[in-house]
Amino acid sequence: MIDRIDINCDMGESFGAYKLGRDQEVMDYISSANIACGWHAGDPLVMEQTVRLAKEKGVAVGAHPGYPDLMGFGRRRMDLTLDEIENYVIYQTGALYGFAKAHGLPLQHVKAHGALGNLAFVDLEASRAIARAALRFSKDIILVVYTGTVMVQAAKEVGVRFVEEVYADRVYNPDGTLQSRKIPGSVIHDSEKAARQALTMVQEGYVVAHDGTKVKVKPESLCVHGDTLSALAILQEIREEFRKASIVVKPMGQ
Amino acid sequence: MIDRIDINCDMGESFGAYKLGRDQEVMDYISSANIACGWHAGDPLVMEQTVRLAKEKGVAVGAHPGYPDLMGFGRRRMDLTLDEIENYVIYQTGALYGFAKAHGLPLQHVKAHGALGNLAFVDLEASRAIARAALRFSKDIILVVYTGTVMVQAAKEVGVRFVEEVYADRVYNPDGTLQSRKIPGSVIHDSEKAARQALTMVQEGYVVAHDGTKVKVKPESLCVHGDTLSALAILQEIREEFRKASIVVKPMGQ
Amino acid sequence: MIDRIDINCDMGESFGAYKLGRDQEVMDYISSANIACGWHAGDPLVMEQTVRLAKEKGVAVGAHPGYPDLMGFGRRRMDLTLDEIENYVIYQTGALYGFAKAHGLPLQHVKAHGALGNLAFVDLEASRAIARAALRFSKDIILVVYTGTVMVQAAKEVGVRFVEEVYADRVYNPDGTLQSRKIPGSVIHDSEKAARQALTMVQEGYVVAHDGTKVKVKPESLCVHGDTLSALAILQEIREEFRKASIVVKPMGQ
Amino acid sequence: MIDRIDINCDMGESFGAYKLGRDQEVMDYISSANIACGWHAGDPLVMEQTVRLAKEKGVAVGAHPGYPDLMGFGRRRMDLTLDEIENYVIYQTGALYGFAKAHGLPLQHVKAHGALGNLAFVDLEASRAIARAALRFSKDIILVVYTGTVMVQAAKEVGVRFVEEVYADRVYNPDGTLQSRKIPGSVIHDSEKAARQALTMVQEGYVVAHDGTKVKVKPESLCVHGDTLSALAILQEIREEFRKASIVVKPMGQ
Repeated sequence: MIDRIDINCDMGESFGAYKLGRDQEVMDYISSANIACGWHAGDPLVMEQTVRLAKEKGVAVGAHPGYPDLMGFGRRRMDLTLDEIENYVIYQTGALYGFAKAHGLPLQHVKAHGALGNLAFVDLEASRAIARAALRFSKDIILVVYTGTVMVQAAKEVGVRFVEEVYADRVYNPDGTLQSRKIPGSVIHDSEKAARQALTMVQEGYVVAHDGTKVKVKPESLCVHGDTLSALAILQEIREEFRKASIVVKPMGQ
Repeated sequence: MIDRIDINCDMGESFGAYKLGRDQEVMDYISSANIACGWHAGDPLVMEQTVRLAKEKGVAVGAHPGYPDLMGFGRRRMDLTLDEIENYVIYQTGALYGFAKAHGLPLQHVKAHGALGNLAFVDLEASRAIARAALRFSKDIILVVYTGTVMVQAAKEVGVRFVEEVYADRVYNPDGTLQSRKIPGSVIHDSEKAARQALTMVQEGYVVAHDGTKVKVKPESLCVHGDTLSALAILQEIREEFRKASIVVKPMGQ
Repeated sequence: MIDRIDINCDMGESFGAYKLGRDQEVMDYISSANIACGWHAGDPLVMEQTVRLAKEKGVAVGAHPGYPDLMGFGRRRMDLTLDEIENYVIYQTGALYGFAKAHGLPLQHVKAHGALGNLAFVDLEASRAIARAALRFSKDIILVVYTGTVMVQAAKEVGVRFVEEVYADRVYNPDGTLQSRKIPGSVIHDSEKAARQALTMVQEGYVVAHDGTKVKVKPESLCVHGDTLSALAILQEIREEFRKASIVVKPMGQ
Repeated sequence: MIDRIDINCDMGESFGAYKLGRDQEVMDYISSANIACGWHAGDPLVMEQTVRLAKEKGVAVGAHPGYPDLMGFGRRRMDLTLDEIENYVIYQTGALYGFAKAHGLPLQHVKAHGALGNLAFVDLEASRAIARAALRFSKDIILVVYTGTVMVQAAKEVGVRFVEEVYADRVYNPDGTLQSRKIPGSVIHDSEKAARQALTMVQEGYVVAHDGTKVKVKPESLCVHGDTLSALAILQEIREEFRKASIVVKPMGQ
């Protein structure tokens, strides 16, 4: 049984005059912030403010690199070479590091955003390129990989530090993959249901798939999506359940 | 009399399919590379290749942040707030640091590019914002300031490490400022003339202004513009003169 | 006395995943939409949807070109050449025309956005460049100029069709210019006050400046800012007052 | 036998400080210019100059829309929705139309660039989206489709005007498709060979595939790539052969 867990959430997704997300409130319930790096979302002012806010709240910061596609919010697959993927991740990781450094914080982790993350789930070569980028940037940095995917294999091969993440607010397939968002009901908006799933994963080490199968998981970090309307309610419920169960929420790097 | 000097030059200004400059050749004659950070020029692949090339040639690397204006090559003044300037410099410095780190090199310096640099020459507040960005990023980083401008004052006030640079290939005014590029003949294309000016600045500590006045200068780094057709010839001539005069060319940080 | 007037408002300022403004509601109260063209705001999907919405509501469409600065929402002055200003306006006007054409609508007008508009208020050369762009694009297109500025002179010299606009929600100086936004209270959020100012301008041909001076104005189009929280209330109040006063609201081009 | 043909070539691919291609010289040998629209290449100044140059040389102008990917020169596939493809093409077509209109030229044609064009070769839905965009923009505009691909079917279904193009400088497969660029020798750099292929296609209505098969083609426009070093030599040779054979080179729209 695990008595501690990290909760990670995407933060800093505003851009210029455009506001997105409820970072100020969400930051109270998480331990690790995946901060957009200006390519699919975020800009230097937003990055600075998000790192500052994380510091105030005791939340660890990580880079959330994505495709160079602000118009598509990094959610559209682009056919990049492995060299491009690796260097795009280094660039964005470095950019966010700048703000962590300016605030005297370590850069805790790297997690691929959107369509780049989805590619990494299924493409071993792309996963390796992302892992290489993280490792080349720093031996101390942690790559967040999705449990049960080729990302785990890539991280091991490349030799980068990594933690495996699970999702509180997504429905699982019996093989441990996530049920496609295209299938209605795949994103869990019911805060009690999400909290129960989170608790079972952390305390029991499994998740109940959509067909009732118990799938073993190894939760080191719990992802909650900050951009849904229900995110805040889900986070509050999870924290309440964790408090009752004496599960401590701490950054993955501690 | 000074027996050593740094030579800095703008590098890594290609972008995607677009090639600019003769980095491969120029890198043989300089000791510090000001590398574009993707906002006015450069992209992650170009940055990676430029840092790699610098490492091979024993050239120290620095960030060359500019305005977010690829279409204008960073040469068009933008009315930014001081907060924007500071954070834009941190972002770009961090991005380049990523590639230096990936190659095991320290990030030696920061130098503002184009219209941002021109603004810093004359605007104390903007100079301070740039200096703050460099210092916040690292106490070890060196800010390249133009000798005789408010940049020197800003660097001192802020407490950032800095070196003063002079220009081998620009005509000087009697007050130590550079003669405007709009006046014909302000950029020196004659390699012998440029080499002579460089040698006099380094050996004698002065430069002869366009009216014959001897202006005192304190050369710690010598800037040569890599994007002119004559740049390579000028660099070769300067290195030959320095060799004869037993002046050693070394990165500013050593 | 005037018995008809146009009401124009900035529309289509969302971008990708980022939503801005309340176009769906505001479009019910205006007769001309200034639609962002993708440089400071807007993207092709947003432009298409905004033109479609305008068509459904019987609102005439115009291009709202701005600086190439999405990060700054076109509100930061950039030092462009006149050639750049002219061609940037042609580009954006053409882009919006594409969507008007696709929906079988004429492109009624052009109005400069943000810092480009502010520049045009005071810079005759810049105003001429914008006017030339509009005229070169089409003899039928109407340039929206701010009454009492050099834009009027530029429009006359260049020979472009134009209408003069006044502001319902801004406080005036005695010389007919707008009181700077930096002075508290310069933007009118009180819908009754804005409606009264609008009515006086249209019915009486003057506006009461902040010191009580009656300033003559020639209102052909009335601008209301759609991005303020109070915009909708102001528009509703203005339409109600106009209805009572039998002032018809019609697109400037009809 | 055909006694007239159009020659189209990509033009206007410079961007800001970055120069690409030899437009000034190439424009002497072609009859239709596919002009980049600022998304994968080109900017408003370049577009203006390219349209001006085309007008001087009597060359017809068309829009060459691509993916929003300047860093990848539009050569990287992006997973766009059909709605995005359609509206991105309308946007770019409109933008180029602005410059054609400013110079009093009709916008003759639309041809998809790079990876968007490659997608259209094989994806009927994407081809239809591009065809719809062209038709919605104007009933008079001609869509350039690649002979023997689904683009022909899409153009017919949608009801847009179209011409079929063939390649002078590419090796063909026996089924009429182009041999992949990944196979060495697929791009013809020998100007005599390219000219012979062009002449055979126009005069005889077939092309000899790499295995000797004679493949029937219906050449209405002949594409030559302007970005290869050999492009100019190929164009000169083709024009010389056409002159001897009394084949007139005229814009596709005449």
